[in-house]
Amino acid sequence: MPHADQLIINIGRLATGQQAPLRGPNLAQLTCLDQAAIAVQAGTIVAIGSQAELSAWTADQVIDAQGYLAIPGFVDPHTHACYAGDRAHEFELRIKGASYSELMAAGGGIMSTVRATRAASIAELVAQTRPRLDQLLAHGTTTVEIKTGYGLDTATELTMLEAIAELAQTHPIGIVPTFMGAHAIPAEYRDNPEGFVDLVVEEMLPAVAAWWQQQTIWQEPLACDIFCENGAFSVAQSQRILLKAKALGFRLKLHVDEFEPLGGTPLAVELGALSVDHLVATPPEHIAILAQSETVGVSLPGTPFGLGKSQFSPARSLIEANGILALATDCNPGTSPCESMPMAIAIGCRYLRLTPAEALNAATVNSAFAIRQHERVGSLAVGMQADIALLNLPDERHIGYKFGTNPVAMVIKAGRVVHQSQLRADR
Amino acid sequence: MPHADQLIINIGRLATGQQAPLRGPNLAQLTCLDQAAIAVQAGTIVAIGSQAELSAWTADQVIDAQGYLAIPGFVDPHTHACYAGDRAHEFELRIKGASYSELMAAGGGIMSTVRATRAASIAELVAQTRPRLDQLLAHGTTTVEIKTGYGLDTATELTMLEAIAELAQTHPIGIVPTFMGAHAIPAEYRDNPEGFVDLVVEEMLPAVAAWWQQQTIWQEPLACDIFCENGAFSVAQSQRILLKAKALGFRLKLHVDEFEPLGGTPLAVELGALSVDHLVATPPEHIAILAQSETVGVSLPGTPFGLGKSQFSPARSLIEANGILALATDCNPGTSPCESMPMAIAIGCRYLRLTPAEALNAATVNSAFAIRQHERVGSLAVGMQADIALLNLPDERHIGYKFGTNPVAMVIKAGRVVHQSQLRADR
Ligand SMILES: [Zn+2]
Ligand SMILES: [Zn+2]
Repeated sequence: MPHADQLIINIGRLATGQQAPLRGPNLAQLTCLDQAAIAVQAGTIVAIGSQAELSAWTADQVIDAQGYLAIPGFVDPHTHACYAGDRAHEFELRIKGASYSELMAAGGGIMSTVRATRAASIAELVAQTRPRLDQLLAHGTTTVEIKTGYGLDTATELTMLEAIAELAQTHPIGIVPTFMGAHAIPAEYRDNPEGFVDLVVEEMLPAVAAWWQQQTIWQEPLACDIFCENGAFSVAQSQRILLKAKALGFRLKLHVDEFEPLGGTPLAVELGALSVDHLVATPPEHIAILAQSETVGVSLPGTPFGLGKSQFSPARSLIEANGILALATDCNPGTSPCESMPMAIAIGCRYLRLTPAEALNAATVNSAFAIRQHERVGSLAVGMQADIALLNLPDERHIGYKFGTNPVAMVIKAGRVVHQSQLRADR
Repeated sequence: MPHADQLIINIGRLATGQQAPLRGPNLAQLTCLDQAAIAVQAGTIVAIGSQAELSAWTADQVIDAQGYLAIPGFVDPHTHACYAGDRAHEFELRIKGASYSELMAAGGGIMSTVRATRAASIAELVAQTRPRLDQLLAHGTTTVEIKTGYGLDTATELTMLEAIAELAQTHPIGIVPTFMGAHAIPAEYRDNPEGFVDLVVEEMLPAVAAWWQQQTIWQEPLACDIFCENGAFSVAQSQRILLKAKALGFRLKLHVDEFEPLGGTPLAVELGALSVDHLVATPPEHIAILAQSETVGVSLPGTPFGLGKSQFSPARSLIEANGILALATDCNPGTSPCESMPMAIAIGCRYLRLTPAEALNAATVNSAFAIRQHERVGSLAVGMQADIALLNLPDERHIGYKFGTNPVAMVIKAGRVVHQSQLRADR
């Protein structure tokens, strides 16, 4: 009789994407199965199939999925979830029509988060970030990427990495860090942006590479991200930083085309970046270049929504051109204070015109590929980590349909139940 | 020593609007108090003030508000939360670009909900609606308006009223029903819309008025609502139905200007309607007429969002013209499958440009006024019902800031704790 650590029974329906990445029209591909079960050994799926097929299995622990819809736990490949303070004051000023320069004069914008983060200890950063991770997990996210970038000096960037490392060891959610020293030009370099690029290239990148060498939590290379945008880093500055990062062994990713199409997308493809993120003002010729690469286009629909805008990523163009699309929350205190992948999906279905199946795959298989975690998470199959979100939905076509509420009834991380909703079953 | 049934202590901050209705710029008026407490007797607030002011009170039950932000429970003045089935299939078809007539041909649209509702028993309707009320309550709504209108024949409209009455008696949320027999022209009257208007006027309204007479749950008059829109009811048809309703003692309300400005808004003002709801395509001259009346403009920002549109209610124009603005979810299976007032607020802050204070008042004081419940609910003062949402937010400026997650930590209805979140405190 086969025996497992955990046996998850009574899965009403199971929906999972296939082999990553799902390119172009393959984004709609789902494997669905009614009345399923999953056997887990040491956190890994060792058997998956119909309840009948797994009927011979026994286990130390039986988890009753109560007939819910099982999907892979969401993988959120783009967040700034580690920060101190918040930006509610700026939110109110923006609603009242304050201009960007007025916000800055009122102490708003990213610099207010940088000031708060620089003033915080590792313990304070951990304490303020932890409840955001609780929310991410409660909304079905089992793996989250978290960027640095509110330090903008070497010491605080390392403090952020220390805080993220501590959370990775003490919170059930899976965490993949990204170094983003080039998130903005800090106030002290306002009149000398090249001096800040020098600092990133000559001091931060080597220091972070050395820190990464000595840490023991993560095995793969660390990624280096950059905000390529007017008012942040030019294409030339981005290239200089990313080339140095690449030489030091970093993987690369870029924030591009949030407001202006500077040319960050072709640069990313040329450098073999993992992903280009935001992708709103991207012109068709850059979508065409992106679609022919392994670089993932990560759309962050919470960001235009958060800013009350009506232009979103040209996701259908990327799909039609056979590119790789993923979704993320962009969870951050300024433009997208959102810890919910179901919310990103709900916006994506409506404003990117993604079907529920496409949105689900963009938020699991492809988002895992965007941070190159697809060999362990983002889909449900033998050999994958048993990271599962159980949704209070009749089937996969209901994903994204309701909005503003949390469809997640239960969350399983590596075979262990790490969250359960107390709300009554909706069926 | 004053003694109460319940004493709610340790309210970190209390924010509540003043006397309803809050017209024009008064919409931003909030009374805020740090370290507050509330004494409740027989469900009603008998004392409210600083913790120090209430220090002499004792109570049978002490409720610890854990430092959270207390606001009046949300009043959701426009929902279609009672229905059978769902419309996820239509949602998917719409994303794929199906036209309205293709949706209809595929059995979609409101008629699919009418078919499912006609086929449901009272018990089935109750069972399917109850979890939606659980979600509404969990998101801080303590009073909800629920419309009929998925029957479109006399028997099923009465069945819906019976189901709503049963829920009112068995669910902790406060329910205010509305009769909306003129929600759509049913299939069997497609070629004879005037015949359906005859049915509403000659059969439904008298039958519903008689049913209302004999029920014992609600004391005030029932409201009659109508969908005044191309493809639904013309201004002349609306007028005929509403005049008959008025003669039978109904209060009046109208769905207007969701897509086309037919003239429903001036008709509503002329008839002294409680509210005009949707209010998207409303021209400036109709906003001006509305703003000078007691009729509330109820914006439903979840509906354009739900449809992936970028035109929302001209809320700032209504405020500038000194009108009365309220917010609602429009919770319904087609266009706005949303049970969360915090979500309606988050969309309203961004796309109607409401400040957090304005959005809070539009969702409490003014939404209570929109359904004329403002003498018992929608604000926190001596003599009001103790309906309180405790939010996991530092202060009222954080309302609407985060989106896609539920800020509600605890819900109190008439002094009784009816919901508590199990998520860790976010402070
Ligand atoms: Zn970002
Ligand atoms: Zn409606």
